[in-house]
Amino acid sequence: MKGLASATAAVPIGAGKYSAEIQPGWDIMGNANGGYLLAIAARAAANEVQRPDPVSVTAHYLRPGMPGPVTIETQVLRSGRRCAVARSTMTADGPLVAVLGTYGTLEPSGHLERLESGPPDLPPPDDCIPIEPTETFPPPFMGRIEIRLDPADSLHATGVPSGKARVRGWFRLRHEEPIDTIALLVAVDAFPPTIFNADLPIAWSPTIELTAHVRARPQPGWLRCAFTTRFISGGFLEEDGEVWDESGTLVAQSRQLALVPKG
Amino acid sequence: MKGLASATAAVPIGAGKYSAEIQPGWDIMGNANGGYLLAIAARAAANEVQRPDPVSVTAHYLRPGMPGPVTIETQVLRSGRRCAVARSTMTADGPLVAVLGTYGTLEPSGHLERLESGPPDLPPPDDCIPIEPTETFPPPFMGRIEIRLDPADSLHATGVPSGKARVRGWFRLRHEEPIDTIALLVAVDAFPPTIFNADLPIAWSPTIELTAHVRARPQPGWLRCAFTTRFISGGFLEEDGEVWDESGTLVAQSRQLALVPKG
Repeated sequence: MKGLASATAAVPIGAGKYSAEIQPGWDIMGNANGGYLLAIAARAAANEVQRPDPVSVTAHYLRPGMPGPVTIETQVLRSGRRCAVARSTMTADGPLVAVLGTYGTLEPSGHLERLESGPPDLPPPDDCIPIEPTETFPPPFMGRIEIRLDPADSLHATGVPSGKARVRGWFRLRHEEPIDTIALLVAVDAFPPTIFNADLPIAWSPTIELTAHVRARPQPGWLRCAFTTRFISGGFLEEDGEVWDESGTLVAQSRQLALVPKG
Repeated sequence: MKGLASATAAVPIGAGKYSAEIQPGWDIMGNANGGYLLAIAARAAANEVQRPDPVSVTAHYLRPGMPGPVTIETQVLRSGRRCAVARSTMTADGPLVAVLGTYGTLEPSGHLERLESGPPDLPPPDDCIPIEPTETFPPPFMGRIEIRLDPADSLHATGVPSGKARVRGWFRLRHEEPIDTIALLVAVDAFPPTIFNADLPIAWSPTIELTAHVRARPQPGWLRCAFTTRFISGGFLEEDGEVWDESGTLVAQSRQLALVPKG
């Protein structure tokens, strides 16, 4: 198994329980990436309900995840014709992540498609800014995936925030690993926070909750991604994501809610 | 207790369990409104964690809810300084709705606010279209709440869909009942589906999942609401909502994922 498939493997150990391991190197400042943790918990639930695709999954983050063994407890709530619903909870010393999801088997629908907008207009990957990992910043996690940032969202091109809470760019897995719908759960949480470009005194914004909707299985190649924050208010901010494949298909939408720490 | 407070009352019966009742009249074609069911389940969880406000709650809909007694089983997963996380599952003969949520105590934050856009620009309530209930369509549910639709989203003004999957309007509870943050969970699912205005052969689009983020407690008065669908693709559509109070504060954001039935 290649990188992400191996790092999200969940082995059934009976009675709806799975054994997995948070692998080193998937962290940001020591804490495992939230999309990565969601991917592990969703992989276990998808296996339990025997449906490969996370149609809609929501993670609430309880405690930081550190490298080491974890257990995922799953519970099937409904198994219907098109979809199945399951809970999965990842636990180490205590509960780390709680996930509620609907899983299915995605097929090209064909019959009714209407899009109000298309994929983000990005410069080619070679004209975008690659992010390579360091032991601190950019974090080790960047070595597990590959992203290229649009220089127009200027922070990573010029060191100066663009002033707009937006990040766009390309995503793929390293070593030509194929991107399945579980890997899309990593893609929606892989980019630098939008607020880094907002030119506001927010250095850290812990995610409370992340929801991803997966619409289709991606074609091979780079994914085009765009993340935007429209509302910083009430002590919270949302980050909305869109992920499109190389054929121009919308493959995932995401929204996360993050805390704005009190200054 | 007034209408919604009474209709969402959840009485603790021990060991994290609550007794409640799906009241008649909160239905659309016989099935209880999804936001109403979420409000009942969130009310129980909020009580269990002793935090009044549903900061981020996600419901997955398992089976239609019919009038009658239900049980809500809650489980607290984490109780921290600012937030608590809990699951709640509503059951009648079988599980109806599964909810995962983070609850807190919302306070005006003041310290950092940035909004990329403001409340929707609506004609005054008296110049909008009131929707009154019938036994079929508009459904009985409309008698429990009060909405006034912007005539620009023309279906309900002219009988002709506007062609754009958007619905905007005003929301309040009947009989001057105050709107708390649990009632906002009803507001985000109270309007006619956006796709009714899309002029597409979609008559019915069952909700798989609904997530609401509550940013603030609303001031008394009407709420300004806007719901938009941008992507009908892959056999699914999303409906994004924004709810603002009369003082111009963003009080809630929502997104739901619905199935597009095969034609």
